Amino acid sequence: MPKGVPTSIPDDGLTTRQRRNAPVLAVNTGDGKGKSTAAFGMAMRAWNAGMSVAVFQFVKSAKWRVGEESALRALGEVHTATGQGAPVSWFKMGSGWSWLRANDAAAADHAQAARDGWREIARCLASEEHDFYVLDEFTYPLDWGWIDVDEVVSVLSQRPGRQHVIITGRRAPAKLIDAADLVTEMVKVKHPMDAGRKGQKGIEW
Amino acid sequence: MPKGVPTSIPDDGLTTRQRRNAPVLAVNTGDGKGKSTAAFGMAMRAWNAGMSVAVFQFVKSAKWRVGEESALRALGEVHTATGQGAPVSWFKMGSGWSWLRANDAAAADHAQAARDGWREIARCLASEEHDFYVLDEFTYPLDWGWIDVDEVVSVLSQRPGRQHVIITGRRAPAKLIDAADLVTEMVKVKHPMDAGRKGQKGIEW
Repeated sequence: MPKGVPTSIPDDGLTTRQRRNAPVLAVNTGDGKGKSTAAFGMAMRAWNAGMSVAVFQFVKSAKWRVGEESALRALGEVHTATGQGAPVSWFKMGSGWSWLRANDAAAADHAQAARDGWREIARCLASEEHDFYVLDEFTYPLDWGWIDVDEVVSVLSQRPGRQHVIITGRRAPAKLIDAADLVTEMVKVKHPMDAGRKGQKGIEW
Repeated sequence: MPKGVPTSIPDDGLTTRQRRNAPVLAVNTGDGKGKSTAAFGMAMRAWNAGMSVAVFQFVKSAKWRVGEESALRALGEVHTATGQGAPVSWFKMGSGWSWLRANDAAAADHAQAARDGWREIARCLASEEHDFYVLDEFTYPLDWGWIDVDEVVSVLSQRPGRQHVIITGRRAPAKLIDAADLVTEMVKVKHPMDAGRKGQKGIEW
């Protein structure tokens, strides 16, 4: 997309510089593909701009996001080795919320694990620990009522400093969409599985 | 998206394994954000699966894709240094089509440069040079009539081996959509520029 002129200049008392540096809350939703993939693509870009990246993955499966995780972790190691880019952190719900429940992952209640994950995100935001957050598939615990949408919107709206947050998943709650700066809906036009194709490594995960 | 069971099993004489390994032609189109970003996210995933990645960038601007380019190049260097992942190649229209017009970039006719780029892609596909191709913003030279859509569809449909191709950009021609396996439309729901915000490094590029 062209980086063109805004369609209007808001009367918000901010300078152009302040507006350019405003932290972004983005939501990628809809039933089509590319919601998370685009968020990870943005994370690559953020990494290159020197923003420390933190991914919070709200879906637990062995295969999920392995490609993105190891590529982003490799970029984190590039930063450690050469100083290029920025640090990368990756947290997984369930077994991955290890700072909270190292020893009872097998018995973890998913709703509680999701709430613990959100609590950790809120803590990170309050202390400005990262520059760029991907809350991957975070709309589901919101949609299922596991995490309170009003609290999430309140914490996100009041986050200090310049922390960008990208949230992905279907059925994003209306209050979250209202609070977001950038909302994109991915719409499925055609999918290989409709023609009986199977998912495959490197394409689907 | 879940890697679930296909909605139907086609009567195409292929085994499940053959269907799982079928090369994918994907198109990310629409007016919303995330078309290219999702393609670069897929490229990360392909890199991790050991597929050699080639990006052909059909828009020429100093700032465009700098983040994705340097992150993907860094991953290519990780491969060179450690063997993890796969090689990454990045080609830019105009000055970047250096294998064809090293000395007349300034005077390059854009339509001719786009055609030269396409010719190089067709050559790579014929010789199976890469495993995963991103033809970034490739719909524009098609939409503008610079490159013949029928020829593109014919070359893509007959490409040998197992080469995945992801094409991005608005206004994807109907014939290309017909030929594709996976088509996603990115729809803008809300954009910061609507509120007078400016594009910013690490987010927009």
